[in-house]
Amino acid sequence: MALRAGEHSQEAANGLKEKVLTLDSMNPYVRRVEYAVRGPIVQRALELEQELRQGVKKPFTEVIRANIGDAQAMGQIPITFPRQVLALCVHPDLLNSPDFPDDAKRRAERILQACGGHSLGAYSISAGVQMIREDVARYIERRDGGIPADPNNIFLSTGASDAIVTVLKLLVTGEGRTRTGVLIPIPQYPLYSAALAEFNAVQVDYYLDEERAWALDVAELRRALRQARDHCRPRALCVINPGNPTGQVQTRECIEDVIRFAFEEKLFLLADEVYQDNVYAESSQFHSFKKVLTEMGPPYAAQQELASFHSISKGYMGECGFRGGYVEVVNMDAAVKQQMQKLRSVRLCPPTPGQVLLDVAVSPPAPSDPSFPRFQAERRAVLAELAAKAKLTEQVFNEAPGIRCNPVQGAMYSFPRVQLPPRAVQRAQELGLAPDMFFCLRLLEETGICVVPGSGFGQREGTYHFRMTILPPMEKLRPLLEKLSQFHVKFTREYS
Amino acid sequence: MALRAGEHSQEAANGLKEKVLTLDSMNPYVRRVEYAVRGPIVQRALELEQELRQGVKKPFTEVIRANIGDAQAMGQIPITFPRQVLALCVHPDLLNSPDFPDDAKRRAERILQACGGHSLGAYSISAGVQMIREDVARYIERRDGGIPADPNNIFLSTGASDAIVTVLKLLVTGEGRTRTGVLIPIPQYPLYSAALAEFNAVQVDYYLDEERAWALDVAELRRALRQARDHCRPRALCVINPGNPTGQVQTRECIEDVIRFAFEEKLFLLADEVYQDNVYAESSQFHSFKKVLTEMGPPYAAQQELASFHSISKGYMGECGFRGGYVEVVNMDAAVKQQMQKLRSVRLCPPTPGQVLLDVAVSPPAPSDPSFPRFQAERRAVLAELAAKAKLTEQVFNEAPGIRCNPVQGAMYSFPRVQLPPRAVQRAQELGLAPDMFFCLRLLEETGICVVPGSGFGQREGTYHFRMTILPPMEKLRPLLEKLSQFHVKFTREYS
Repeated sequence: MALRAGEHSQEAANGLKEKVLTLDSMNPYVRRVEYAVRGPIVQRALELEQELRQGVKKPFTEVIRANIGDAQAMGQIPITFPRQVLALCVHPDLLNSPDFPDDAKRRAERILQACGGHSLGAYSISAGVQMIREDVARYIERRDGGIPADPNNIFLSTGASDAIVTVLKLLVTGEGRTRTGVLIPIPQYPLYSAALAEFNAVQVDYYLDEERAWALDVAELRRALRQARDHCRPRALCVINPGNPTGQVQTRECIEDVIRFAFEEKLFLLADEVYQDNVYAESSQFHSFKKVLTEMGPPYAAQQELASFHSISKGYMGECGFRGGYVEVVNMDAAVKQQMQKLRSVRLCPPTPGQVLLDVAVSPPAPSDPSFPRFQAERRAVLAELAAKAKLTEQVFNEAPGIRCNPVQGAMYSFPRVQLPPRAVQRAQELGLAPDMFFCLRLLEETGICVVPGSGFGQREGTYHFRMTILPPMEKLRPLLEKLSQFHVKFTREYS
Repeated sequence: MALRAGEHSQEAANGLKEKVLTLDSMNPYVRRVEYAVRGPIVQRALELEQELRQGVKKPFTEVIRANIGDAQAMGQIPITFPRQVLALCVHPDLLNSPDFPDDAKRRAERILQACGGHSLGAYSISAGVQMIREDVARYIERRDGGIPADPNNIFLSTGASDAIVTVLKLLVTGEGRTRTGVLIPIPQYPLYSAALAEFNAVQVDYYLDEERAWALDVAELRRALRQARDHCRPRALCVINPGNPTGQVQTRECIEDVIRFAFEEKLFLLADEVYQDNVYAESSQFHSFKKVLTEMGPPYAAQQELASFHSISKGYMGECGFRGGYVEVVNMDAAVKQQMQKLRSVRLCPPTPGQVLLDVAVSPPAPSDPSFPRFQAERRAVLAELAAKAKLTEQVFNEAPGIRCNPVQGAMYSFPRVQLPPRAVQRAQELGLAPDMFFCLRLLEETGICVVPGSGFGQREGTYHFRMTILPPMEKLRPLLEKLSQFHVKFTREYS
């Protein structure tokens, strides 16, 4: 701030008028937004990459971006069938090409028939192409053992983030002590804290239990809610399952407890289920909130309000760049649903290519289709490798002194706890950095490994973590994990 | 509301608890949002289409959606080259196909090289693929006669709407009489009123001069500003050029006046220039705000803050569904720019396919490229047909009694003024409808023509308009215009 004030005086001295829009005069809620996954550490990683390209000598030859769940950036090959379908939709001349399988052509034709002007270049309706909403509904029904899903409760979106932000936005009201409070897990995916900061809603933290593999404990929900009621009006509860950044997969019993709690306490439930296809632990299984809620029967089934989010960015496709996703709303007030529809219409429609890939994701080739064997083989290979990498990550970290890593039951991240020596903590404080930010920055500078400090996700006071994706290719992952562990030993020695 | 209260009592009687999220308890600012382009009239159009499909007898055989600037939905054929490039990027196996021209392959390879993991499936950086930002900068430089553009001032976006909303969001602060006021034209494109309602900012209306072909008059800006200062803090001025829904193209002199006014009054300028390639009138020419501002020299060139928006949805491509666009910021405070970058990073990145199409839009085939002749022919055909349709629309409407239409100098819409007889106005009021909404609904029910009432864009009290796109294919457009004019005669007779 001192520096900026100086700049202002300089400008004044030069006879320049002050800008209309400055740090001091801009939206204060936007200023408060933080998003660690693409924060300062990633800026520094970009700079290092540039320096490497310019031939600057470094103790490493490449930067490894293990900061973000971006499978294809880490070398994962796109699944063939969805890309074929999309290429056909983009350039329908290819429908005459012998190089594409018949089922891909049939699928592309079916999608184009459902698009305005039979082209991806037309806007779709704001909720997404109706046929794709119907395919999503059928996918949910299959996933949930036949429980009905209504296409009119499904809204396609620009990635899951877009839908999550929309639902949170609907919930925000009040001022002072009546402001909307939203319960979010700690550690959390920082989209939640960022959106709540921007909307000036109250973030209500509930802590996941690291000692029990990041389990969600209803007693802790109750504590968080009780305390929050003193200063805000809690109206919603966010759950991330499988967990990001924590990788746990919730048990059915836990989900039932959460639903009972939400119902009793009159909380709208947001279930971030974008990693529903990413479950690796043999003892774990994904249970959707919608299914559990419905099977619990009355009063939950017909009354508990729920929004469940999914995405094409994760799972086995990892098609992040296309920005596809959806939300299914359950038991939402009809008039509110109309308001949501109206709000979304202002942004016209989600990108059509993401809608196409979502259609394939929810309705993949059937066993009788020509593309089935290849699709199935590619899909299995991706998921098997992710499972192996989850296992390896946990193993290597738990062999390292001073690092402890819960099992990566699902999702795409490990979130190990690191011990940092008191002198390192002190040094970080002198530099005005969170201790784990200091650790991660040093790690980046010395090894080229880019991970995100736990402070960007939230953690219990006095504990330190980092989030690292399990996505680097197998041949790089083991050396990476070992390098990181060795760096931690060296760092600990340096500050002991 | 009476009905809803009744519903509540019914629920209570059935022992159902009230929903957490209701019309009464939701975000009140979202409730205030209106977006006429996809409002109730379009809902009704969808219903009519469904009824037609079900064989219900109507006085028409198809619904013509002239409500939205969606060229491909109206039958415009996509330009070949950008679709080829995108298909190659989506499915790189095609790089070996003999069916694609070399320049399309080279372009696709160049784009993929610049993507994470050489794939569109990776996230790009939040501001967009760096190489594409550089191509946009070179496009702006060519457009503006060599005035430099910095790629780091260019942020790619999910259509222009996304970027417009982001810049508005940065500007919103204050409460009560210090709330941010934003000057917007009336008639306006309702994205502006919707965003300001959502952000609880103050919409400050300045009226375009219908008598002078919707010209922007600085005296009117001054009046609006003076009045606004009593109840808010005006900080920004939005200009849409070429105009939407009004179709005027601003003169260079007018733009200079606006820039001087913004500078004197300390207003951040937002220039919505998404129709910059859509100029039809021979006497009109597009001048970018950036170019004019720079050529005006000091103090404007180095100080006036500006954000200029562009899109792939309009122009000659009309690739609405892909959601591509960008904003160039000029003279923006460096710290604010960083905040904008941070805010955008929360949503990860704009969809990569839209980025690819944007790259082609800003960097089309050169005369020496194999695809040039075809590209040029297709581009010219689209623009020539749009120009002819703009002319025809103006002509036919101005021959009709009781309809008066300003020249459609640019963009994609006519916004004719219609006389409505007092008895029709009275009938509308009895029905609780805006008079032009009543007219447009009757038009839809009797002819299948879907246009948007002027009340959705704003207009001077006591005047009535509708917005109709010029996009229907030529062979349909003339009968459509005549049918509409005849309906107006009949409607006028009915209520006289």
